[in-house]
Amino acid sequence: MVAKSKKQKIARPKAETPQGFQDYFGETHKFRVQMMNDIAEVFNKFGFDPLETPAVEYLDSLGKFLPDLDRPNEGVFAWKDEEKWLSLRYDMTAPLARVAAQYRNTLPSPYRRYAMGPVWRNEKPGPGRFRQFYQCDADTVGSSNVAADAEMAVLTSEILDVMGMAKKDFLIKINNRKILDGILVVAGVLEEGNAESDSETRGAIFRAMDKLDRLGSKGVRQLLGKGRLDESGDYTKGAELTGSQIDPIMNFLELGNQSNTEILDKLRDLVAETDVGSEGVYELNEILDCINAQNSDMENFVIDTSIVRGLDYYTGPVLEAELTFEILDEKGRRKRFGSVAGGGRYDDLVKRFIGQKVPATGVSIGIDRLIAARESRQAEKIKVRGPVLVTVMDRHRMADYQKMVADLRKAGIKSEVFLGNARNFGKQLKYADTRNCPIAIIQGEEERNKGVVLIKDLELGSKISETASLDEWKSRDWQQEVRVENLISTIKEILAK
Amino acid sequence: MVAKSKKQKIARPKAETPQGFQDYFGETHKFRVQMMNDIAEVFNKFGFDPLETPAVEYLDSLGKFLPDLDRPNEGVFAWKDEEKWLSLRYDMTAPLARVAAQYRNTLPSPYRRYAMGPVWRNEKPGPGRFRQFYQCDADTVGSSNVAADAEMAVLTSEILDVMGMAKKDFLIKINNRKILDGILVVAGVLEEGNAESDSETRGAIFRAMDKLDRLGSKGVRQLLGKGRLDESGDYTKGAELTGSQIDPIMNFLELGNQSNTEILDKLRDLVAETDVGSEGVYELNEILDCINAQNSDMENFVIDTSIVRGLDYYTGPVLEAELTFEILDEKGRRKRFGSVAGGGRYDDLVKRFIGQKVPATGVSIGIDRLIAARESRQAEKIKVRGPVLVTVMDRHRMADYQKMVADLRKAGIKSEVFLGNARNFGKQLKYADTRNCPIAIIQGEEERNKGVVLIKDLELGSKISETASLDEWKSRDWQQEVRVENLISTIKEILAK
Repeated sequence: MVAKSKKQKIARPKAETPQGFQDYFGETHKFRVQMMNDIAEVFNKFGFDPLETPAVEYLDSLGKFLPDLDRPNEGVFAWKDEEKWLSLRYDMTAPLARVAAQYRNTLPSPYRRYAMGPVWRNEKPGPGRFRQFYQCDADTVGSSNVAADAEMAVLTSEILDVMGMAKKDFLIKINNRKILDGILVVAGVLEEGNAESDSETRGAIFRAMDKLDRLGSKGVRQLLGKGRLDESGDYTKGAELTGSQIDPIMNFLELGNQSNTEILDKLRDLVAETDVGSEGVYELNEILDCINAQNSDMENFVIDTSIVRGLDYYTGPVLEAELTFEILDEKGRRKRFGSVAGGGRYDDLVKRFIGQKVPATGVSIGIDRLIAARESRQAEKIKVRGPVLVTVMDRHRMADYQKMVADLRKAGIKSEVFLGNARNFGKQLKYADTRNCPIAIIQGEEERNKGVVLIKDLELGSKISETASLDEWKSRDWQQEVRVENLISTIKEILAK
Repeated sequence: MVAKSKKQKIARPKAETPQGFQDYFGETHKFRVQMMNDIAEVFNKFGFDPLETPAVEYLDSLGKFLPDLDRPNEGVFAWKDEEKWLSLRYDMTAPLARVAAQYRNTLPSPYRRYAMGPVWRNEKPGPGRFRQFYQCDADTVGSSNVAADAEMAVLTSEILDVMGMAKKDFLIKINNRKILDGILVVAGVLEEGNAESDSETRGAIFRAMDKLDRLGSKGVRQLLGKGRLDESGDYTKGAELTGSQIDPIMNFLELGNQSNTEILDKLRDLVAETDVGSEGVYELNEILDCINAQNSDMENFVIDTSIVRGLDYYTGPVLEAELTFEILDEKGRRKRFGSVAGGGRYDDLVKRFIGQKVPATGVSIGIDRLIAARESRQAEKIKVRGPVLVTVMDRHRMADYQKMVADLRKAGIKSEVFLGNARNFGKQLKYADTRNCPIAIIQGEEERNKGVVLIKDLELGSKISETASLDEWKSRDWQQEVRVENLISTIKEILAK
């Protein structure tokens, strides 16, 4: 009403989804809910309990760990409330750290929780860059045992399995940031015993390394050195390393496809002189042993030194799940589907709040990517059956039609009366078609006086109209007249076909 | 890492849920998911399709319809993005209007959708005032037929039924804003034929009327007149009506408890001289007929003239579902549980975007209130069984314990290895207790050499420790030694009890 009184003054708003956001209709939504229920079941089986935190957090409790340092508010949506800054969560891990600190005296220890829901990133709008997407996370807070990290890898594998991915179609890639630290010590970038000393340089190096698959070897070298000019003309400042510092990093990054045992041996040599690196290799070995104990099928679990992860808060083992089959990109080129899940150990995130180290590890599954993957593996989209439609032949008998639909619903049959403008019957059938209605029920004056209804089997009708000869068409057994008292049973029969 | 390097400079953030927001743990969350699945099933049965819009909308497409005119951004959370203002949705209806306008050429007409999810209100923080809460909405866009309004009432009743509310415990209260407009014409506040003429006065009057249950007759009179000073000393400006204008409004508002037929007769008389009011009464009558056709049980559906609804966008029939049983408030006083759902017709909301009137009606169910209601009707909280816990007796045999838990999970049994600090066995049992674990599995050196495991039936154990005599305690059949190969079958037996 307020808007109305101002109609001379204000322009009509444009009806548009905000840039970078999406609307999800019918089947797509149902499909995601189903997938999330399936994933929740796996989380439950592994002993994780649900937690739901609000979408909104105090900005200072989220911290700034996103790689998008050049975006407003460093990649988050934030605004000032009464006194404090509020912000939309950018992941599920930062709120978990807040919860683990806030309720530390009452939560079980270790605290094992799962969380599912949307997260928001203040990304620069652009094709394929979404500013709201779903994550499904599982985390164990309060365990320093790398068995907890191994469990995340096994859990991820099981979820991909439940999501219908064939073993040959995915890899769980594992690495350890401690080995990266070891390499940085070997390269002379950090000091041993104080490997986290220059956290800004370290962050810049890790972010550069994380871009290997996108920018290739040359691009990463540039980012490790002076800097890089991208195709759009934007310049990214580099980590300012010298050539002799860059070489060992690139060697490590590009160890490539070898057996886990071979890579472990090489890594052991590469970081032998550093404590942090050696510890990292030892942990990696332990993780593989633990996975092996739980899984007869080791070929899905590989050490991959190019896995770094973009988020700043990881401190130890990291993992990434990659779908290895190829799809066509926007330009029709074949490319690997790529990452659908990732995670790792973040021992310092709870410490931000309470000053004490609380070991923690977790994994985050990108459900929207998984849905896209599943859809790309399906020959055709599943179409959900719409409601049985009670058509309206006589507007003044609305109450009768309502009674019919009430009876259908009582019998558990999804159904509705046509509520649009009933004057045009063709519109009602068109509506039935758009909604994928299996059956239309018709009762005009004549049928009513005879105590019958006409039932149109629309699914059969559309099958017939696709393939049938004229004779079959005429036989019209996709339309039948039944006594009102047999309505429900006839409909049940048709739907059961 | 970034935070770490700044630790001398920045203070530790406090771990706290933002004011007005809530964290939901384990059972509470599972309970809501279950309820939402149940509600979705009813929505589906009635022929509604799901729609999920993003949490974020352009501020101008949401419009300003909340009654909280005195709050920042008029009650919504909003912030400026690149060029435009973004905002968190405050309900599900405004985004639906945007979608109905945006996709009007491809959506079925009528468009019948349901939506479930959180909405956000920039409420003044205070006890019991939540700034994020869930709504479950169903709407029919593109139907001017009041059968669509009647359906909303029946749908709401069925959902309350499915949620376990007894018929005697709730009322669906129905009114029509057109009758209110008629009364305002009779009172000389608005002009006939142009009943929406002074929308700001009309809005102020409706908001005042909507407060009858909170402020009582006297408070509403003050708000209709000069204004009202509340207990906290805040002054709310009134609608500036004269006494002779206020009287017919209050008479209408307080028609009170009479049969639907009696109220309809009185209303017919009250607004007889106005077209808009008479139309409103006619529609109300039609709605009751339609409900009657679908429902043998009319006593849950009542006309209640005090139902106005706070939101500004309603144009016709409005409804509210009220739980009538009493609960104790924070101060221990008995009071009616109150409203858990509401809705109505909003024929102008899509028009904001496209300039054409698009008739629409819907209902919104406050799931958090329903959960509170359901909990208040339950004798005790349901406690969900935790995982079977494989305890760790020997840290160096982690892989063995992992193998055990992998076997349990393969058999579909929710289970986990204790991943905390295993040195203190008591801590492991305490953990099992906090997690409500039904069973603990123990295998130390000795058991391992014998090829056995110890199985503690913790549920039986806790029952025994509550009621048992010393002899029963000693018999200790809540703890048994079984061969490793019988582990799964024994656990299945215990869990099936």
